Amino acid sequence: MDLKFKVLKTDKNGARLGEFKTKWGTHKTPMFMPVGTQATVKTLSPEELTEAHADIILSNTYHLWLRPGEDVVDNAGGLHNFMNYKTGPILTDCGGFQVFSLAKPKDISEEGVKFKSHLDGKELFLTPEKSIEIQNKLASDIIMSFDECPPYPVTHEYMKNSVERTLRWAKRSLDANKKRDTQAQFGIVQGGEFEDLRKWSAIETAKLDFDGYSVGGVSVGEDEETKLKMIEYATKYLPEDKIRYLMGVGEPIDLIDGVLRGIDIFDCVLPTRLARHGNALTRDGRTNIRNAKFINDLTPIEKDCDCYACRNYTKSYIRHLIVSDESFGQRLISIHNIRFLTKLMEDIRLHIEKNDLLEFREEFVSRYKKK
Amino acid sequence: MDLKFKVLKTDKNGARLGEFKTKWGTHKTPMFMPVGTQATVKTLSPEELTEAHADIILSNTYHLWLRPGEDVVDNAGGLHNFMNYKTGPILTDCGGFQVFSLAKPKDISEEGVKFKSHLDGKELFLTPEKSIEIQNKLASDIIMSFDECPPYPVTHEYMKNSVERTLRWAKRSLDANKKRDTQAQFGIVQGGEFEDLRKWSAIETAKLDFDGYSVGGVSVGEDEETKLKMIEYATKYLPEDKIRYLMGVGEPIDLIDGVLRGIDIFDCVLPTRLARHGNALTRDGRTNIRNAKFINDLTPIEKDCDCYACRNYTKSYIRHLIVSDESFGQRLISIHNIRFLTKLMEDIRLHIEKNDLLEFREEFVSRYKKK
Repeated sequence: MDLKFKVLKTDKNGARLGEFKTKWGTHKTPMFMPVGTQATVKTLSPEELTEAHADIILSNTYHLWLRPGEDVVDNAGGLHNFMNYKTGPILTDCGGFQVFSLAKPKDISEEGVKFKSHLDGKELFLTPEKSIEIQNKLASDIIMSFDECPPYPVTHEYMKNSVERTLRWAKRSLDANKKRDTQAQFGIVQGGEFEDLRKWSAIETAKLDFDGYSVGGVSVGEDEETKLKMIEYATKYLPEDKIRYLMGVGEPIDLIDGVLRGIDIFDCVLPTRLARHGNALTRDGRTNIRNAKFINDLTPIEKDCDCYACRNYTKSYIRHLIVSDESFGQRLISIHNIRFLTKLMEDIRLHIEKNDLLEFREEFVSRYKKK
Repeated sequence: MDLKFKVLKTDKNGARLGEFKTKWGTHKTPMFMPVGTQATVKTLSPEELTEAHADIILSNTYHLWLRPGEDVVDNAGGLHNFMNYKTGPILTDCGGFQVFSLAKPKDISEEGVKFKSHLDGKELFLTPEKSIEIQNKLASDIIMSFDECPPYPVTHEYMKNSVERTLRWAKRSLDANKKRDTQAQFGIVQGGEFEDLRKWSAIETAKLDFDGYSVGGVSVGEDEETKLKMIEYATKYLPEDKIRYLMGVGEPIDLIDGVLRGIDIFDCVLPTRLARHGNALTRDGRTNIRNAKFINDLTPIEKDCDCYACRNYTKSYIRHLIVSDESFGQRLISIHNIRFLTKLMEDIRLHIEKNDLLEFREEFVSRYKKK
């Protein structure tokens, strides 16, 4: 499916303002995707996602394959129908990252990966063809090619073999997609911290003419400088006219830095995971709502925030809910945190327009205490 | 505060159709109150309660006293402001039931009850005066007098001493209420399964001229027949022109049976507690949504139900959420279960109007498989 991606503007730093189309409408980039691992963005309704300005969500192929199973989602008419999310596109990942991070692979071969389910220890085998077959049944709008996401660090030799196999898997993933007319497909660039391998992976993957390109294997334990290089090494060699998606990155400053390196889409569990531990994202950094200093604080999480939580509830109340382990508290902070990131993306788009994204970054960083 | 309670009609069985007023509007009885123990009806927003036709909620004095503390709620301007519930009244209980059920009392004296907190084991002392002081700070619309809720069964002698003390506590509770102009106050009838003690408790408590009367100590382990007698023994001797509130009862058939014995208000954690375990209330009885037979069931929990969950989600999806321990599933079933009970109360009111509540009961019981 052609996403009709258009770069509307590229600023002096390489940050891109763009848009793409799906049957759900026109979507502005740069954008952030909340993660609905198990066909639900934890604690939230679809309406709450829309109200928090989430314009797209990600769901996890690995989790849905294991539970409830792709046939159950297919029986419901795909993920949109299954979870009643009808206001924006859904992107599904390929399962590769989860297989390597959650499931402890037993054996990687040319054919695929043999591993054990993290739920019940059952032996499973995931191949490029199987990943695409599952994603076809999930009927998401954008699907990912199957890749290996190696741990960090590995040797240059290991990574070379890995990106070569990931490229062969990308070809097989493309061939396996029986629904290219309704499901756009992205390729994934790997290569770790090695410029030559990122370059090779980007150029060779781009030759396969995907609808967009993901940068994978970032935020896997490397230092800040290496993280930025990993992104640069990939985006430098990716085509200008296709979407670039940085996988698994959601720290506010990382989002700005990714955009400054030409990234268009991001996803991360950060906003909802932080919320479950009582941490709210604010312009001043993370706020631990459990803090006793908030016990009688009648102000919202953040002044001027237009989210449902900030319009209606005080820190005093949300603190009480979190301390009392009431899920409504996690829900309120999740709403706020997602809105914080969608608002950040709105600000980023505005400042690309205004040609002052670097100044915006400087001002943002001066206030935001990184954790 | 005068609730301006009016009995609009009493049917041939003694079931009453009525209404009362608070600053939030006019409220129709018989009615059911969802329970927001910790200043939140578990998993739900205030808007969802209103949409599920909940017209009043109950919150627990004991829990809020322990956490966050009544002064925190007072600082927020009372419970309505604290939890942002602005569409209906809040009733607070007196803490007695929780002290006796959760906290293992150390020592009951004429003065009050010495016990240990179920949260941290801290030694606490609750008296009628303290219970009312806390409820005054919570600023609920209806408060309860402090009572002893004895276990079941106890001897006639124990119960006689207990109801006599509860009456003395009721007087002290009434004297302690400094906000009678804005907070209506109910007395509580106890007496277990003993007709003479229920009668004595009802008549003597009614002499104190409360704004309404609760029937306590029901649904504490007794059999069905005894339960109904406990209610009858109390309502028989209560004034016609005051609200009668049966505490802690929420089983659908019990609600009908309570109304048939002249009860106007009920509360119970049943709808939300069942939901947390994946159980939905339906006209056919409880449905365990975890059941494997629902894995591909694309119908709602209940056909013809107008709740948010039934209008938008299938059993297949809700089953997946519950099995995957996603709180959105508990939320959807909570919404449905509360709506099921508020709809049942609407039906009950309709059938009092139509003079066929007994026939409605018969038809309801024939379908509803009691658990």
